Amino acid sequence: MTAIETVSENRCFGGVQGIYRHQSEEIGLPMRFALYRPPQAENGPVPVLYYLSGLTCTEENFTIKAGAQRLAAEYGFVVVAPDTSPRETGIPGEDDDWAFGTGAGFYLDATAEPWSRHYRMESYVVKELPGVVEGNFPADSARRGVFGHSMGGHGALSLALKNPGMFRSVSAFAPMVSLMNCEPGVNALKGYLGEDQETWRRYDCCELIASGLTCPPILADQGTVDEFLPNLLPDRLEAVCAEKGQPLTLNMREGYDHSYWFVQSFMADHFAHHAAALNP
Amino acid sequence: MTAIETVSENRCFGGVQGIYRHQSEEIGLPMRFALYRPPQAENGPVPVLYYLSGLTCTEENFTIKAGAQRLAAEYGFVVVAPDTSPRETGIPGEDDDWAFGTGAGFYLDATAEPWSRHYRMESYVVKELPGVVEGNFPADSARRGVFGHSMGGHGALSLALKNPGMFRSVSAFAPMVSLMNCEPGVNALKGYLGEDQETWRRYDCCELIASGLTCPPILADQGTVDEFLPNLLPDRLEAVCAEKGQPLTLNMREGYDHSYWFVQSFMADHFAHHAAALNP
Repeated sequence: MTAIETVSENRCFGGVQGIYRHQSEEIGLPMRFALYRPPQAENGPVPVLYYLSGLTCTEENFTIKAGAQRLAAEYGFVVVAPDTSPRETGIPGEDDDWAFGTGAGFYLDATAEPWSRHYRMESYVVKELPGVVEGNFPADSARRGVFGHSMGGHGALSLALKNPGMFRSVSAFAPMVSLMNCEPGVNALKGYLGEDQETWRRYDCCELIASGLTCPPILADQGTVDEFLPNLLPDRLEAVCAEKGQPLTLNMREGYDHSYWFVQSFMADHFAHHAAALNP
Repeated sequence: MTAIETVSENRCFGGVQGIYRHQSEEIGLPMRFALYRPPQAENGPVPVLYYLSGLTCTEENFTIKAGAQRLAAEYGFVVVAPDTSPRETGIPGEDDDWAFGTGAGFYLDATAEPWSRHYRMESYVVKELPGVVEGNFPADSARRGVFGHSMGGHGALSLALKNPGMFRSVSAFAPMVSLMNCEPGVNALKGYLGEDQETWRRYDCCELIASGLTCPPILADQGTVDEFLPNLLPDRLEAVCAEKGQPLTLNMREGYDHSYWFVQSFMADHFAHHAAALNP
């Protein structure tokens, strides 16, 4: 069992909202995550939702702004929000670009120097974090869901597609669904993976679905006045899901933008979606 | 009608969360407030809740952390959160103390130099802000409630007590109920009002109740492991309310601290309390 350090714990809706830190083997540096433990977890393992955040976020944004604890307490879910990248790697310029480097791990394993040593968020989220969480908290490894926002929506969908059986439920808020077809995505793929576009495909949700991969039915919400719509491309997700038979419910939300004012507005729908699979 | 400037507006739970700025006559400087407009406000004036925040807060803390928008949309309430003090007054040292000066207006009208010119939060909240809000938004001046947290709990209770009929409902989270009997309160009273303790009494909730003033039934929630309990003194509130017949429901919440993790956990109870009076 990996040793974790408690940064903070506060009682919230009858459970405990914590921030924890541990030495990550995949990342090679300390990593933080937020974890909410609902009251039901006192009686044994409960389902666990992994939430992947967007660009510039830490483990705190979702935790403070999404209104998830109330729902987690209602449904009895552990909810985990990891950080979005390694921090303080010492790589020159790591903090210079809001959409690359610090706060922008893109849930991939970098292969290009100098990023490949620490920028291993895919392996961190898939191979390491669940063990840390489920070894230290009453979270049921057989009932995992994954969701996320923006870059983290890309993370949720792509990780669910590439790891069949790992997550029983998946959803996303304003997901970035095709990294190969948006500017911040291309920039990240080039920087973290190099110029060979063949290696980019496994980090593009639409390409993954087009290749025949499937995941549990996807719920996605997307604001119609989202300032990042040109980078998100919900039409492409809708088209490829229809073509390949991947179940998708895509709700276009009139007048909503990209912020957590939007995310919190539809959080209850996402919990209900996950509960249908995790607490049937 | 006072002109206001829109700093930001975001759709949230079918309504609009805004931040607004206006030139305050009472304060003599620009002031900001947050205001949530629920979907029901499209059809005409709705009840309005004024929320007074605690030390160090701006208009943003409650707005981001309390989970109030969902409830405001459900009940159909406008919810207003003003800033907690003037900003950038130019008074030397105004930012030096977290519990005095900037972020610490204590909902009083200062009489001592150099604070008396701008530090007029009592008059701002009671005499100016309602007109600004109700003149610019569909908020019903006949159905006002007031609530707050910590220093803002003091604000909510003391303003309700001193302005009979102004607020139909009142509640507080971890209120500072006796400024004359806690260190930050005494420090503030001395600094803003001077040494004459007779002038302090009208800013002490327990003294106000002891003097015979009453307000609508008070709902108060208080965490049992609140790190500021020695400054909050819920026992004194309970005793004086019992003595004078002021209706009070004081819930001691086991294991909860002073934070917004606590506040959000009981926000729904407070909305229900206000709704019973405002939407009977």
